[in-house]
Amino acid sequence: MNDSLTYKDTGVDLDAADRAKRSLAPLLAASGDAHTLSGLGAFGGLYAVPAGMSQPVLVSSADGVGTKLKVAFASKRHDTVGRCLVNHCVNDILVQGARPLFFLDYLATGDLEEDVVSAVVGGVARACRENSCALLGGETAEMPDFYAAGEYDLAGFVVGVVERERILDGSAVRPGDILVGLRASGLHTNGYTLARTIVFERMGLGVDDDFPGEDASAGDVLLRVHRSYLPTVAPLLQQGWVSAMAHVTGGGMEGNLPRVLPDGLGARIDCRAWSVPNVFRQLAIGGGVPASEMYRVFNMGVGMILVVPPEREASVLGALGEDAWPLGEVVRGAGAELAGLG
Amino acid sequence: MNDSLTYKDTGVDLDAADRAKRSLAPLLAASGDAHTLSGLGAFGGLYAVPAGMSQPVLVSSADGVGTKLKVAFASKRHDTVGRCLVNHCVNDILVQGARPLFFLDYLATGDLEEDVVSAVVGGVARACRENSCALLGGETAEMPDFYAAGEYDLAGFVVGVVERERILDGSAVRPGDILVGLRASGLHTNGYTLARTIVFERMGLGVDDDFPGEDASAGDVLLRVHRSYLPTVAPLLQQGWVSAMAHVTGGGMEGNLPRVLPDGLGARIDCRAWSVPNVFRQLAIGGGVPASEMYRVFNMGVGMILVVPPEREASVLGALGEDAWPLGEVVRGAGAELAGLG
Repeated sequence: MNDSLTYKDTGVDLDAADRAKRSLAPLLAASGDAHTLSGLGAFGGLYAVPAGMSQPVLVSSADGVGTKLKVAFASKRHDTVGRCLVNHCVNDILVQGARPLFFLDYLATGDLEEDVVSAVVGGVARACRENSCALLGGETAEMPDFYAAGEYDLAGFVVGVVERERILDGSAVRPGDILVGLRASGLHTNGYTLARTIVFERMGLGVDDDFPGEDASAGDVLLRVHRSYLPTVAPLLQQGWVSAMAHVTGGGMEGNLPRVLPDGLGARIDCRAWSVPNVFRQLAIGGGVPASEMYRVFNMGVGMILVVPPEREASVLGALGEDAWPLGEVVRGAGAELAGLG
Repeated sequence: MNDSLTYKDTGVDLDAADRAKRSLAPLLAASGDAHTLSGLGAFGGLYAVPAGMSQPVLVSSADGVGTKLKVAFASKRHDTVGRCLVNHCVNDILVQGARPLFFLDYLATGDLEEDVVSAVVGGVARACRENSCALLGGETAEMPDFYAAGEYDLAGFVVGVVERERILDGSAVRPGDILVGLRASGLHTNGYTLARTIVFERMGLGVDDDFPGEDASAGDVLLRVHRSYLPTVAPLLQQGWVSAMAHVTGGGMEGNLPRVLPDGLGARIDCRAWSVPNVFRQLAIGGGVPASEMYRVFNMGVGMILVVPPEREASVLGALGEDAWPLGEVVRGAGAELAGLG
């Protein structure tokens, strides 16, 4: 028998896709600004280059959420991962001195569940508003037999702008510059494959179980939203007080700080300079993970590192308050040395 | 027992990821231009806004490849899907009159196989060069137990630019304007969930089997690269001969043409105006798919539709040659009516 076949028979419902996309229109509209020249339904999103800049340089970055998504699936909580995604991307261009202009998301799923799509994109839109960034468009892809039931992948892409002469390219960094660490809100979006193995297999916790040493469930602790450092750091950049910045993502401090230092300079970090948050201590114990590995996989409580000239240290720390600590300095050499580790 | 756990034990190999990323550096470098101000390893890619424009407007789009990827997996051929992705995105901003500036990709996989990553990103880089577009960066994510072994998802984001006064926003479209169809190279990147069901289940073909009516295998026919219309259409845009353009993607002509027409105007398409390519005829027969559904899911051989004032029709068709046909006109009303369908 050879029944007549339609797209819907094979699991792709164009009408449902249309409905889901239309339901996102208010989210896009609410995040727009005077530079947003297009509405939902356009093939491409339109954004006017801000006027009045001398030599505007676009700064762009793409990222995903990684397997933090698995914690969202298990927790049936889909409104936080979009915020993690946007904030991660915003931080990635902030380290070059840029402020975000617009964002686009890519959401791929096996079966388009309208309420899940709305929650995910709602999180994206909320974070865009919080970062004064337009949600200019995106793609919602329905890919049956690609993703497991109830699962999806989420990626995003940000475009920001910076004056050419204000790009943080490491050239202003000098030996003796102070490293200032900024508090992380949690694991941010890195190390989740290891963290999930430890929490859900080794420690034997479920997402709703209490996490040791915290007044919160394992799911809540692991889903804590990746912090955007834009509101904290933008005023310092405005003042010209920062020589370089590193976003502590996959690879940890050792992997990320050297990326923003010029050739011939390295970093010396004193791991006793701040108190490692409970979640990382529990992961190290629960998984028997060596300290060197912990610092390579996780941010260990420091989500962003600013490189600051010594004469600006007091002003910067004064402006940042208790969310920041001096944790080392720039030295001649290469790489990042972690002292007092473990 | 509680063995000490590392990231690599859980399936994430940071060293392999570093190696894979470094192997992509030449691909990124080769696609750059004078506006590309950053190298590999930077958190964000830097791109100088082109000088000399009066009111530059950025045009951006995000897309994926959909389940065409499944055909690539089955064929073990990974060098074409990146080209489909870039060309799709380039076409999506071309319809608003924009030329591409830069591109970023997102590649997510369960297990980072260096040769597969190189082939996929190599295809992305090649298409970027072909479209005179910089591959400014991207994200390669290793997500164990998220994607099946040997599988990956691929998404991309393009940013282009257009002078504000040259944006194709539909305002120049008039009743009586001619619709000119441009030849598609194949299915492009739409309708693959239905097409795969028909070819591999209903027709019972393998990727290496001959495709009926073609001197090519089923895999070759289904993997044909999504065509970029940039080189064909850019000279016409330069002349100001085009009032609007629609990229025929998911939803077909009916779903996409109305997106670029102003309120109060619709389209009348004569489906006898061109010869539907063999692949679509075989899919209709093999799946018993009603004609109305075929035209809603697939491009049916027309990958792009230009809206052209009648007085420009001869010039446009002369410039385009045999790859283009007049296939209808703009009428008062709404939507797109397909005449002679079936």
